[in-house]
Amino acid sequence: MRRIVFVLIAVAALAGVVAHMVPASGQADQEAVPIFVTEIPPGYRDWRLISVAREEGILNDIRAILGNDIAIKAYREGKLPYPDGTIIARLAWSYVQSEENNKVFGRPQSFVAGPPKNGVQFMVKDSKKYASTGGWGFAQFDDGKPADEAVLKTCFPCHEAIKAREFVFTHYAP
Amino acid sequence: MRRIVFVLIAVAALAGVVAHMVPASGQADQEAVPIFVTEIPPGYRDWRLISVAREEGILNDIRAILGNDIAIKAYREGKLPYPDGTIIARLAWSYVQSEENNKVFGRPQSFVAGPPKNGVQFMVKDSKKYASTGGWGFAQFDDGKPADEAVLKTCFPCHEAIKAREFVFTHYAP
Repeated sequence: MRRIVFVLIAVAALAGVVAHMVPASGQADQEAVPIFVTEIPPGYRDWRLISVAREEGILNDIRAILGNDIAIKAYREGKLPYPDGTIIARLAWSYVQSEENNKVFGRPQSFVAGPPKNGVQFMVKDSKKYASTGGWGFAQFDDGKPADEAVLKTCFPCHEAIKAREFVFTHYAP
Repeated sequence: MRRIVFVLIAVAALAGVVAHMVPASGQADQEAVPIFVTEIPPGYRDWRLISVAREEGILNDIRAILGNDIAIKAYREGKLPYPDGTIIARLAWSYVQSEENNKVFGRPQSFVAGPPKNGVQFMVKDSKKYASTGGWGFAQFDDGKPADEAVLKTCFPCHEAIKAREFVFTHYAP
């Protein structure tokens, strides 16, 4: 066991050295780095809830933010940075007034999730693979198909604004 | 194995006979039946998401509806009635405008989950135990403490209005 640990440390150290030997990348190099996630993380609909939100304006949706086990653990422990392997999923649905609920309540007060809207989005943490975008790879899938690169290029500029919170908007809702 | 199954069927049949031997209960008897759940179902915050909603008016919250494994299975299979053991949890939080999100978006559009609000509610399916309220036991916990009976007595009259959907308001959000 100790020997395996030693070998792993040696490999990790070597990888670090190699990483440092790669010349600092300019703009052209950064664009060559894969910053987008192209496969839907399996089983995401079964992940646990981080929080919920409502976006008005053009988005006009109601949403749930789910996390894989690594994400939930990191959130609950309140530790930053999020470890590699963290995946955060953003599901969204049309913001729909519920007529059947309102009939029971006797007033228009109830808004529920309608059909899926604005795709399903993911942030995948891999500090090496996605080093040029804060360690996060971004993804959006519309009806299961990855969104165009033009769409994905809009992710990081927004998330960059909350660098202090490790590029993640959503707080954990207890 | 077959013998065990046979014995179980025999016991179940006997229980059915005994149930039928109990005289039809009047109003006074119904009130003696335990229709409220007094213990928080363990681990509910780890359950999977059924859907999300926003309630305006006096409630004024944003909410998530979670289900235990039996609930999620029943929802996904679209089978009614919900089997005994189904538990549906309703978490709710203050509906809070997110100033940090809006600063990034450049406009007031983002509403998120603030502190917990309106307690945590549960519906527990047990068709025998809660027979007098459609097979559902109701619960609300405020800061971990069960709500007064007066509060809980307001649950069923509302849910009764959607008897056709087995007394459950929330649809599954894909």
